[in-house]
Amino acid sequence: MAWRFALVIDPVASDEERSDYADTLREIDPDGPALGVGELSAQRGDGIFESLGVVDGHVQEIEPHLARLVHSAALCDLPAPNLGQWRVAIERAARAAGEGENVMKLLLSRGVEHGPAPTAWITLADAPDNSRGRTEGVGVATLDRGYALDVPARAPWLLLGAKTLSYAVNMAAIREAKSRGADDAVFVTSDGYLLEAPTASVVLRFGDRFVTPEPQAGILHGTTQLSLFAFLEGRGFATSYETVPAGDLSRADAAWLLSSVRLAAPIRSVDGADVPVDRAFTDELNAYLLSPRD
Amino acid sequence: MAWRFALVIDPVASDEERSDYADTLREIDPDGPALGVGELSAQRGDGIFESLGVVDGHVQEIEPHLARLVHSAALCDLPAPNLGQWRVAIERAARAAGEGENVMKLLLSRGVEHGPAPTAWITLADAPDNSRGRTEGVGVATLDRGYALDVPARAPWLLLGAKTLSYAVNMAAIREAKSRGADDAVFVTSDGYLLEAPTASVVLRFGDRFVTPEPQAGILHGTTQLSLFAFLEGRGFATSYETVPAGDLSRADAAWLLSSVRLAAPIRSVDGADVPVDRAFTDELNAYLLSPRD
Repeated sequence: MAWRFALVIDPVASDEERSDYADTLREIDPDGPALGVGELSAQRGDGIFESLGVVDGHVQEIEPHLARLVHSAALCDLPAPNLGQWRVAIERAARAAGEGENVMKLLLSRGVEHGPAPTAWITLADAPDNSRGRTEGVGVATLDRGYALDVPARAPWLLLGAKTLSYAVNMAAIREAKSRGADDAVFVTSDGYLLEAPTASVVLRFGDRFVTPEPQAGILHGTTQLSLFAFLEGRGFATSYETVPAGDLSRADAAWLLSSVRLAAPIRSVDGADVPVDRAFTDELNAYLLSPRD
Repeated sequence: MAWRFALVIDPVASDEERSDYADTLREIDPDGPALGVGELSAQRGDGIFESLGVVDGHVQEIEPHLARLVHSAALCDLPAPNLGQWRVAIERAARAAGEGENVMKLLLSRGVEHGPAPTAWITLADAPDNSRGRTEGVGVATLDRGYALDVPARAPWLLLGAKTLSYAVNMAAIREAKSRGADDAVFVTSDGYLLEAPTASVVLRFGDRFVTPEPQAGILHGTTQLSLFAFLEGRGFATSYETVPAGDLSRADAAWLLSSVRLAAPIRSVDGADVPVDRAFTDELNAYLLSPRD
């Protein structure tokens, strides 16, 4: 992956309105040393992030991503992000975008150990080529996330609705899925309900109805899934958030992994068994997801 | 916390024996920029670590810590550490140690995104003053870890026995405990068994018998707990690894949190209710733990 740009943000308090946010940004070499060894992101995975798609220079869905950054910060007791400052920083980073697809990451860590303030930075890079996943689809392996469905609501310290930097388990699940011959994983609860993929939401189609697991079940509320539901509703389809038995993944008329950079990747097999893929409809979804969205 | 020293290691394959390991180490400014923004430790908490106590310049228990680093690397599909190289690096960092207590951290990350190799570094800092916890003891709040006891064995992708850099949940649990008026948390399974603290092992005393939860339950096998058990066995006490009901924490004759830097901190209350502390015996344990150990 080729880095295009990186900047460090000197965070301003969320309730402090300023006109000089541009002066709080510092461009850095994305290939050079940038973070101290005391960084709690690197030592503890203690921070939060967002990944945004950038298509032909247009940053997709800035406000939904910022809203989720605020939500993650609250769950993690991090200082609330100053949205005015982040908007200026995103706009600055976007100027370095090229033609085609890029990925912009927003990162907010608890800072340097015993330091005074959080650390914030943005990176911009060429997006990996996701065309094959979007057209050919992905095989998934279902993996137990270890929790029962009712755990996240009663144990908020497990941070299950926050997009934290502690993604070692997500990465391990993808490796496990690949070792089983699949392309990606889909997490299920220990009591047999569908959750999400390690870096994507899951959406199922039953006839003219589209379903995704309830975010209250300790999953991230997907920005791309939200955008897709709005698109589908505009086309007259029904959408809903439900408690979804894991077996529905194989029983659906179609199913997709959805994320900001990969967009809609149809699921073509579940635990080695083929499931139906609607290629023409998926192409329509990705055409929408690649169009400029705010 | 005052940093004393940091070095970056250029990792050598585990099966490659070399005489110039010293040339693979590079001292860096612990307060300066060191890690790239593409670091998977900072982006994904994707790596492993060890924290070693250093007392009056003596690094405690190097081999047990290296053994656990190897174990964590295997669980996380990271390249096996070259132990000869790590020993040289530890010895180099130890030269920067001062009088009293320091903490040395060994860190091994998956490297820079799409990069060729893992990243490894060591930091050395003054240890925080743990004397109050060792003498006055700590109040703990029990918190559900969200898993049933049988989960770790059947879901290795949850990395429950690995000491990963994804510690956001551990840090959140300590914040939750503090918000409840306690000093620290103790995790229990969702089906009511004792696990560990977010950064420590738990040891209980019943008469002349010392008990700690079985490491197979998805907890870290504590190096300090291992060392303490050897000491206790030498003194004629019985020690055992057991499946421990959570309620035993309040029923024990005494209980401790144990970790490499904090050493033995007696538990003085559980969820707000006082439990017995044996201060003289705890002083003996800490005198042993502060003595040079290999």
